[in-house]
Amino acid sequence: MGGGKKKEVKKETGLGLSFKKDANFGEWYSEVVVRGEMIEYYDISGCYILRPWSMGIWEVMQVFFDAEIKKMKIKNCYFPLFVSSSVLEKEKDHIEGFAPEVAWVTKSGKSDLEIPIAIRPTSETVMYPYFSKWIRGHRDLPLKLNQWCNVVRWEFSNPTPFIRSREFLWQEGHTAFATKEEADEEVLQVLELYRRIYEEFLAIPVIKGKKSEMEKFAGGLYTTSVEAFIPNTGRGVQGATSHCLGQNFAKMFEINFENEKGEKGMVWQNSWAYSTRTIGVMVMVHGDDKGLVLPPKVASVQVVVVPVPFKTADTQGILDACAATVETLLEAGVHAEGDLRDNYSPGWKYSHWEMKGVPLRIEIGPKDLEKNQVRCVRRDNGSKQDITRDNLVEQVKVLLDNIQQSLFDAAKVKRDASVQVVKTWDEFKDALAQKKMILAPWCDEEEVEKDVKERTRGEMGAAKSLCSPLEQPELPEGTKCFASGKPAKKWTYWGRSY
Amino acid sequence: MGGGKKKEVKKETGLGLSFKKDANFGEWYSEVVVRGEMIEYYDISGCYILRPWSMGIWEVMQVFFDAEIKKMKIKNCYFPLFVSSSVLEKEKDHIEGFAPEVAWVTKSGKSDLEIPIAIRPTSETVMYPYFSKWIRGHRDLPLKLNQWCNVVRWEFSNPTPFIRSREFLWQEGHTAFATKEEADEEVLQVLELYRRIYEEFLAIPVIKGKKSEMEKFAGGLYTTSVEAFIPNTGRGVQGATSHCLGQNFAKMFEINFENEKGEKGMVWQNSWAYSTRTIGVMVMVHGDDKGLVLPPKVASVQVVVVPVPFKTADTQGILDACAATVETLLEAGVHAEGDLRDNYSPGWKYSHWEMKGVPLRIEIGPKDLEKNQVRCVRRDNGSKQDITRDNLVEQVKVLLDNIQQSLFDAAKVKRDASVQVVKTWDEFKDALAQKKMILAPWCDEEEVEKDVKERTRGEMGAAKSLCSPLEQPELPEGTKCFASGKPAKKWTYWGRSY
Repeated sequence: MGGGKKKEVKKETGLGLSFKKDANFGEWYSEVVVRGEMIEYYDISGCYILRPWSMGIWEVMQVFFDAEIKKMKIKNCYFPLFVSSSVLEKEKDHIEGFAPEVAWVTKSGKSDLEIPIAIRPTSETVMYPYFSKWIRGHRDLPLKLNQWCNVVRWEFSNPTPFIRSREFLWQEGHTAFATKEEADEEVLQVLELYRRIYEEFLAIPVIKGKKSEMEKFAGGLYTTSVEAFIPNTGRGVQGATSHCLGQNFAKMFEINFENEKGEKGMVWQNSWAYSTRTIGVMVMVHGDDKGLVLPPKVASVQVVVVPVPFKTADTQGILDACAATVETLLEAGVHAEGDLRDNYSPGWKYSHWEMKGVPLRIEIGPKDLEKNQVRCVRRDNGSKQDITRDNLVEQVKVLLDNIQQSLFDAAKVKRDASVQVVKTWDEFKDALAQKKMILAPWCDEEEVEKDVKERTRGEMGAAKSLCSPLEQPELPEGTKCFASGKPAKKWTYWGRSY
Repeated sequence: MGGGKKKEVKKETGLGLSFKKDANFGEWYSEVVVRGEMIEYYDISGCYILRPWSMGIWEVMQVFFDAEIKKMKIKNCYFPLFVSSSVLEKEKDHIEGFAPEVAWVTKSGKSDLEIPIAIRPTSETVMYPYFSKWIRGHRDLPLKLNQWCNVVRWEFSNPTPFIRSREFLWQEGHTAFATKEEADEEVLQVLELYRRIYEEFLAIPVIKGKKSEMEKFAGGLYTTSVEAFIPNTGRGVQGATSHCLGQNFAKMFEINFENEKGEKGMVWQNSWAYSTRTIGVMVMVHGDDKGLVLPPKVASVQVVVVPVPFKTADTQGILDACAATVETLLEAGVHAEGDLRDNYSPGWKYSHWEMKGVPLRIEIGPKDLEKNQVRCVRRDNGSKQDITRDNLVEQVKVLLDNIQQSLFDAAKVKRDASVQVVKTWDEFKDALAQKKMILAPWCDEEEVEKDVKERTRGEMGAAKSLCSPLEQPELPEGTKCFASGKPAKKWTYWGRSY
């Protein structure tokens, strides 16, 4: 039996991961998304298969977000995947940002197309010619659309499942208002929904902030984002973005309207998106050396029930108790599943479901049967607790809530421990070497950010600004920029990023 | 003011359609999907924008179908948009069917790709290499996946919104079983869901049937479908298809498993899909010269409430009554919307919402206010009925149910009137000239179908078999094939089709 075969066998017995999260983070990540059955690598580089185990998470977030935006009277639509080059290139700054990554269709069947057609990297230029057509007067405003779709960015740097892939799924909202005030307000409303996705669903603390001029959306006025942090790699992750586009696209695409007084005006626009990247951030933050760790609120299976038969014991009674437990939980709306397979040992099953990150395991053995109880084992911290079957549902729900909260708390403790406040360049360099998320007073000048990038270049990638937090700590008069020594204008997070 | 401007103004006043359904069906259809705000034409031919008015219908069907397949333990996943040519071309018959319509990506940014990459026209060849990887033993079966996605078929014949577009939205289910019996059973289970989408949601009668060898899915074993009919054009429409693929793909992609006894076997596979074409069929069947007619079960707005103020009457009282009516209906789960705009007359609003096909209009004028009643006007038949506000909800619900049923009944009467039973070639030719959906005894030979196609060629397009209904009428011994005179084996529907 060759080495390859051996490894295969090892994998099939579910004996855990080959890589440790702390020692080989990149390899650990690639392994855990595959072994946890979230992702399958695909034969085209940078494209990945989303298996039901990850799609289930995407669907939970989608149900939440879609209901919330419907409350905001945002309506779903679907614009084409394809965009002609003339339209794509209409907004100069915008296309400059995306041009190198655009995939082009040039042939159908065996025929060359007359004109190459681009695949959307995002849909501003796809949609806005029609905003121009549909918006005539103030009564047509606000126009608030969203679509759930795939987009393609043919990136060449380090493809990583969920985090950086050539095709990904997202929602993209595109709205137009009569006034800047309305647009500004929506930017923050949507940003709050993104915060809730991360904090309430994925149990990941994020910072709401504003991007620097260098890092903002190409062609937009300003960009807000929620920023997460991966302590293991010391990298920030842009979690989702809510852009105010200002009137720049309105100018290019002539999106004008007549107001109540018969005067001509230009609309104010926003666009905002979150993608399947969310799932990758969740894996990176919560996963451990045993595999995935799923927050209960997004897990397709929240509780797995495993029978633990023992020699002479009443095996059928145990199996029945397991089936009844699953039934009771399902009826109460808890996503439970029984693993009653007879060709795997309980130990194998424990490893298997730990790898998949199921938040709570329930074991039922002869003693549990006798005492009318079940044993609960938490995935997040391994703690065990026997609970009586009489108020199973209530206690399981409490446990799941606790797990959700514990995951968030633990992630927040780690994240907070990674934040370092610095005031000087030397402190900054030290903190960067220690993989920190750095909060520093900044003069907010583009030249200075370029200079920071230049001076931190290296194997690990340069540092850049992540965001200026919306909640600004006090900035004492006379505080100087950490990099330029000029008067500081704001606190800004810096670090390496994905 | 030029002619173009004039037409524009006419459109904006909502004075109805320029084309009649019976006189100029094609033009009527193109106009009604745009004026009804379902579709916007796009600057790439064969691609269309789905506006919220049509996406809302898609979403209602999606919620229903997704819940039903989840009950069948089918799980959602997402496979890439792209497929490499080597994989795409693995199954010969299959690729022959799709090759001329495949769109190819050959460039990213300014660089040529090493190898051109295809955009999925459907995902059999995208998915099945991974079925082969994931399926090892009988415990891995059945494997039942579905995805909601876009697909691209670069067709050159007559693009038509919803019905034939270069990109469309669909769901595609892909399942693998240990036995043919299980696969056969699922084919029909899914076909029944498709029937329910058409008959229960879209109020369109369909025929469940089996496709001929010529018309079946390329590379599959047999294809079942639900077939609708458009009386105005005398064309059948394949509404949705549920294919048994047999073991042909399993062979090509080596999808094998070990059964309970340790013997090797090949899986049996199905694939099935319905698309945004459904919406086009709905428009064609129910629409009229005033615009769209939406079945209540799929309408984003089921009831529109219009105030009808009159000179000295209590206008504020009327507006309040309208708002209260909308509120009451919304609370009861009826999708109601008030049109309280003060810059349009009631008459303009009636035309506007008739164009959009809202099933029920409620008018409230001074007399209604006085009598504590509202006036209901049905979109489908124009009938009027005053109902007291005291049991508004109950009566509106009854009305909506009646409209749903009436639409189906009316469509069925028309469809049934279009069906003609023929036994000879002469009868067949006459019936075809009269744009009938023809039910004829057939010998079930491919050569004969080819011959029928050949002999009916012409401007309108050739006739082909639509399906052999699963519910077969009695076929008396000695019945001859309408086309070949050979002994008939089954009853089959024939006609021109989309």
